[in-house]
Amino acid sequence: MIEILLVGDELLSGAIRDENAAALAGQLQAAGLPVRRITTVGDSPADIEQALTGTLPGTRVLIVCGGLGPTADDRTAAAAARAFNCALERNAEALQLLEARLAGLGRPMTAQRRSLALLPRGCTIIPNPVGTASGFCLQRGELHVLFLPGVPGEVQAMSRSVMARVKEILGDGRVIVAQVFKVFGLWESEVQERLRDVLPCTPAITLGYYPRYPEILLRLTGRGLDREAVLRALEPCAQVIRARLADAVYAEADIGLEAVVGQLLQERAATLAVAESCTGGLISHLLTNVPGASGYLAQCCVVYSNRAKQELLGVPAGALQRHGAVSRETARLMAEGVRGRAGTDWGLAVTGIAGPGGGTPEKPVGTICIAVAGPGQTRAGTHHLVGDREQIKLMTACLALNCLRTQLLQTGPGPR
Amino acid sequence: MIEILLVGDELLSGAIRDENAAALAGQLQAAGLPVRRITTVGDSPADIEQALTGTLPGTRVLIVCGGLGPTADDRTAAAAARAFNCALERNAEALQLLEARLAGLGRPMTAQRRSLALLPRGCTIIPNPVGTASGFCLQRGELHVLFLPGVPGEVQAMSRSVMARVKEILGDGRVIVAQVFKVFGLWESEVQERLRDVLPCTPAITLGYYPRYPEILLRLTGRGLDREAVLRALEPCAQVIRARLADAVYAEADIGLEAVVGQLLQERAATLAVAESCTGGLISHLLTNVPGASGYLAQCCVVYSNRAKQELLGVPAGALQRHGAVSRETARLMAEGVRGRAGTDWGLAVTGIAGPGGGTPEKPVGTICIAVAGPGQTRAGTHHLVGDREQIKLMTACLALNCLRTQLLQTGPGPR
Repeated sequence: MIEILLVGDELLSGAIRDENAAALAGQLQAAGLPVRRITTVGDSPADIEQALTGTLPGTRVLIVCGGLGPTADDRTAAAAARAFNCALERNAEALQLLEARLAGLGRPMTAQRRSLALLPRGCTIIPNPVGTASGFCLQRGELHVLFLPGVPGEVQAMSRSVMARVKEILGDGRVIVAQVFKVFGLWESEVQERLRDVLPCTPAITLGYYPRYPEILLRLTGRGLDREAVLRALEPCAQVIRARLADAVYAEADIGLEAVVGQLLQERAATLAVAESCTGGLISHLLTNVPGASGYLAQCCVVYSNRAKQELLGVPAGALQRHGAVSRETARLMAEGVRGRAGTDWGLAVTGIAGPGGGTPEKPVGTICIAVAGPGQTRAGTHHLVGDREQIKLMTACLALNCLRTQLLQTGPGPR
Repeated sequence: MIEILLVGDELLSGAIRDENAAALAGQLQAAGLPVRRITTVGDSPADIEQALTGTLPGTRVLIVCGGLGPTADDRTAAAAARAFNCALERNAEALQLLEARLAGLGRPMTAQRRSLALLPRGCTIIPNPVGTASGFCLQRGELHVLFLPGVPGEVQAMSRSVMARVKEILGDGRVIVAQVFKVFGLWESEVQERLRDVLPCTPAITLGYYPRYPEILLRLTGRGLDREAVLRALEPCAQVIRARLADAVYAEADIGLEAVVGQLLQERAATLAVAESCTGGLISHLLTNVPGASGYLAQCCVVYSNRAKQELLGVPAGALQRHGAVSRETARLMAEGVRGRAGTDWGLAVTGIAGPGGGTPEKPVGTICIAVAGPGQTRAGTHHLVGDREQIKLMTACLALNCLRTQLLQTGPGPR
């Protein structure tokens, strides 16, 4: 049995939202190792110590996040020493890792930073590849306590070695095989409805729904002694999912639409230019989060004003006046304009009203036009979305990337 | 003392992120009623019961969210009856509220829905204005347990009456006054070092540090019987914070750099155009998250390629060849180019290497050049950042917005 303990006043005050427990719990669940309890306490040494000694009967692994930094309110190491009744002492391995890390960052060692290597005697180190505070592990009888920093990026970087340790402690020789599907364009209830009579196929197979607005991640998980046998058992379920969800499944890996679009462009040796109005740069930001995007994304123009639409994209003033800035026709002219000016194979354009202001009775907030200009033709459509400004921006960006994906798939692979 | 208990398998599996504890904790903290512990358990009746009976010594209020619905995995009411050693019985008030609610929704009463009114004997009802499951409150000695549903919208709708109840139970008539500072450009340890000898001024005043990469939120909180008196007591601390952190404090409200830049532009009736290379649209995305950004953000160009830098911004090919795409000179020409082409008062440009590829020994990954072209002059600088692609993009975007903020401040308020 596994528990997670989060340490930090900022989590109790609502100042920041937990990311660590959510991420670790998801990974553990996917590995067939469910979490039984998550506890959050503040930086009070007494409360940390109480939580460290108050695990539920049967808990074999406790993962602790937070309170390992160099400042006065980082008190987890000291509380751990008290809870485990051992001394706090300079840990040679942690000090060495700290010195190497600081040297790499070009930052000096200070007395405050040196305190990062003051750890409970007898602990084993869990290296932190991206931060200065090492993690560590303590054992008392059957209970293993893994201490990690609280910074989400550092926990993420350490999660592979954490997962390996937890599997080693709790493993029963069985393997877990997971098959992931990324879904866009259906509500979670629609997905559940379509898959209602499909699952569970067998008790050893589970299907998890993980909504990540505006997408859904499905994880089909099987467990058994033999990897090949589990894969064979999963395949009929996977086939049904593919058949029932069809086009809405855009990837069988945990990647975003922007990565799929990037792959499709690379496979076709094709290039892209983007013109954004209401998404304000978000489509370009998502596309450029993918390493190597500079290979196919030639340029992007964020064109709020009519003047910018005319000067940067060559949209005629008359067309803007006739159809309005938010219209299928303007979206089409923007997509063709950015494609022509940039000399790319593909042009993607969006125009719309993200709100909260700017809506009219004919074109309320959430009215969105998307156009894809390709080698053969241009396709444009209008959508009506509901949500706040940031939700409408995000949904519009995903809709636009999905339109482009669909068009790319229709042109077939290989260079033109 | 206050604790929160969250109930639901979906929270332990990483399938959904908690919103209820974060929202309630924030409201309680703002009211000077800090939460001491948050516990999350699954739908197991034994684990819920254990959590209900296992509050910390001194806890006077426990708020429970989740497990009040009509389905088989909603088990909180039954666990509460066992934990409080009382019978589960039909609650007349809850039944009446349920009937009225269903009538309003035009949905029929069913046996399953009727089970929503089966509550522990002796509880008092907390009405749910937007859902079918009423909340309720149980008392045992000094401990008051408030049970709420798990749907965030319902918890939000009930939070006012919950806050009133908690204040009634714990209130001492004192008021809380908070003063917020947003800090950019210093590490958390540097901020603490600069403020080390300042605080705590008095036991009634506290200073909290809430890092939100790459920024830090500071919250100075005072408590007392009289609002004006607390404000007077906070002021000396606030003045020291302003003096010691100086320019690094970019706002005294919980807003982002993009909102401050937007305000400064609006106050000056000035307009902005942006040219982004390595940030790939993120600066524009941040700026356009602020409602009304279309009033001052004329356009943005994402120019990865040298061709785009030449054609969209007019950067001479010779300059690109001479200095390289990642150079102060190119950043300067990009900022001046986008300002000139868009006809705006200000031009902001970044060029750099976000990685993981593209680095060289002279210009490693993380080399970033930022330029601000204004009415008077252009300023450009080079920075060296460490991190992954997304961290470098985010830090670069914030550095660029902060450079623009500094330049705007130097031009003084009012239209040019």
